[in-house]
Amino acid sequence: MTPLEFRQQVRHGDFRQPTAGYCGSYAQANLVVLPQAHAHDFLLFCQRNARACPLLAVGEPGQWNLPRLGADMDIRSDVPGYNVYRDGQLAAQPHTLHDIWRDDLVVFAIGCSFSFEQMLMEAGIPLRHIAQRKNVAMYRSNILNQGAGPFGGNMVVSMRPMKAQDAIRAIQITSRFPAVHGAPVHLGDPALIGIADLARPDYGDAVEILADEIPVFWACGVTPQEAIRSAALPLVITHQPGYMLVTDIPNATLAAF
Amino acid sequence: MTPLEFRQQVRHGDFRQPTAGYCGSYAQANLVVLPQAHAHDFLLFCQRNARACPLLAVGEPGQWNLPRLGADMDIRSDVPGYNVYRDGQLAAQPHTLHDIWRDDLVVFAIGCSFSFEQMLMEAGIPLRHIAQRKNVAMYRSNILNQGAGPFGGNMVVSMRPMKAQDAIRAIQITSRFPAVHGAPVHLGDPALIGIADLARPDYGDAVEILADEIPVFWACGVTPQEAIRSAALPLVITHQPGYMLVTDIPNATLAAF
Repeated sequence: MTPLEFRQQVRHGDFRQPTAGYCGSYAQANLVVLPQAHAHDFLLFCQRNARACPLLAVGEPGQWNLPRLGADMDIRSDVPGYNVYRDGQLAAQPHTLHDIWRDDLVVFAIGCSFSFEQMLMEAGIPLRHIAQRKNVAMYRSNILNQGAGPFGGNMVVSMRPMKAQDAIRAIQITSRFPAVHGAPVHLGDPALIGIADLARPDYGDAVEILADEIPVFWACGVTPQEAIRSAALPLVITHQPGYMLVTDIPNATLAAF
Repeated sequence: MTPLEFRQQVRHGDFRQPTAGYCGSYAQANLVVLPQAHAHDFLLFCQRNARACPLLAVGEPGQWNLPRLGADMDIRSDVPGYNVYRDGQLAAQPHTLHDIWRDDLVVFAIGCSFSFEQMLMEAGIPLRHIAQRKNVAMYRSNILNQGAGPFGGNMVVSMRPMKAQDAIRAIQITSRFPAVHGAPVHLGDPALIGIADLARPDYGDAVEILADEIPVFWACGVTPQEAIRSAALPLVITHQPGYMLVTDIPNATLAAF
């Protein structure tokens, strides 16, 4: 199934699940949609926190088709699940955005770790959360985001346990992909970045860490959702975590070198 | 001082010290010299264990000038200290090789971690052994070398303690330099590669590891010396550890990408 065919299924209401494992060779994107009045501050937030918020594309006000991300795309209907936040609170989870779309809404598509996980698996590096069909474990770290306007908060990190050799290889591989979070931000002792207990993630599912493994932490695309909630704007729309926008961008083309 | 000027000083007996810190922008090399009868097996050993034995140059039988390594070079006199092994035992430490040179001797020049340490320091990554003017700590690991003829033994690794962020950056930087050992072979728990006590290195000096640091291990150019001693050949010549051959090769040109 091509990404276009996949998006058509979503658009027609035939696919309403998490997107992990679908169209694996193509980049999936985190979605943030907010009014033009806040677009500059959010763009600045992404620029200042590029490891957590690597931008794949930003639309013009009102633009719901983003040719840079894919052919015949409609952001209002091509994502299998949306969260609508009003004043910082989750207000609705509509199947499409047609009823609430406005001409001043600006689309931000942010790179997703699914892309580098694909590269890690192709390199033979086992990923426990995928083997166990869980969500990746995510934690609110004590690493402060650099603020921009109302957007701030702490970096959220995802954690994958690995043997040391795999961790070294994973650093090499993900370093080539700054557009999808790039290299890890930390490894080893979780307390050094303010994580008290790996068994209790703030998002996703805990996974076991074996005696010969080391936890490796990447900046996570959930970071902007934290920043958005704390900003408590009148209206912000995101994808539902795990229900991503599938793009036409081959992961391999995102390699910086 | 240029590398050529430095080698002239060594040749004239005016420099008989460890070479760390001299001509820092240029590659220094580990030296192995052995008879042609064993040259193929040793070349094969280097090929099979390239992380520990990355070859910068190999001479023809009897060739003591290696233009690929530097101008007006004389391997018989341009290294500030030699070890001569006979039947696997250290037999002499002459100032030059003029008296024992033979037309069947083959020179192997092997990349040295001084090159990547220069790159790490330029990137602002502190190296404790250098700050404390010690030799780097080296350990015999339980990682078996791939044998070739009489050459075998275990990989020797050097260890540098680093904060996690510096370790990640160091992996990125050293990955660019496979000709000088490349990326680390391990990080974290030393017991996983057979090292019982970091406070008791097999070569070099122990350094402290702080609470927020992780030990990072690289394949080490002492590995071939272990393989050579265990092979117990009638004659092998090496540099004295720390007393390296200074080449004309700028470290920056060794970057693979």
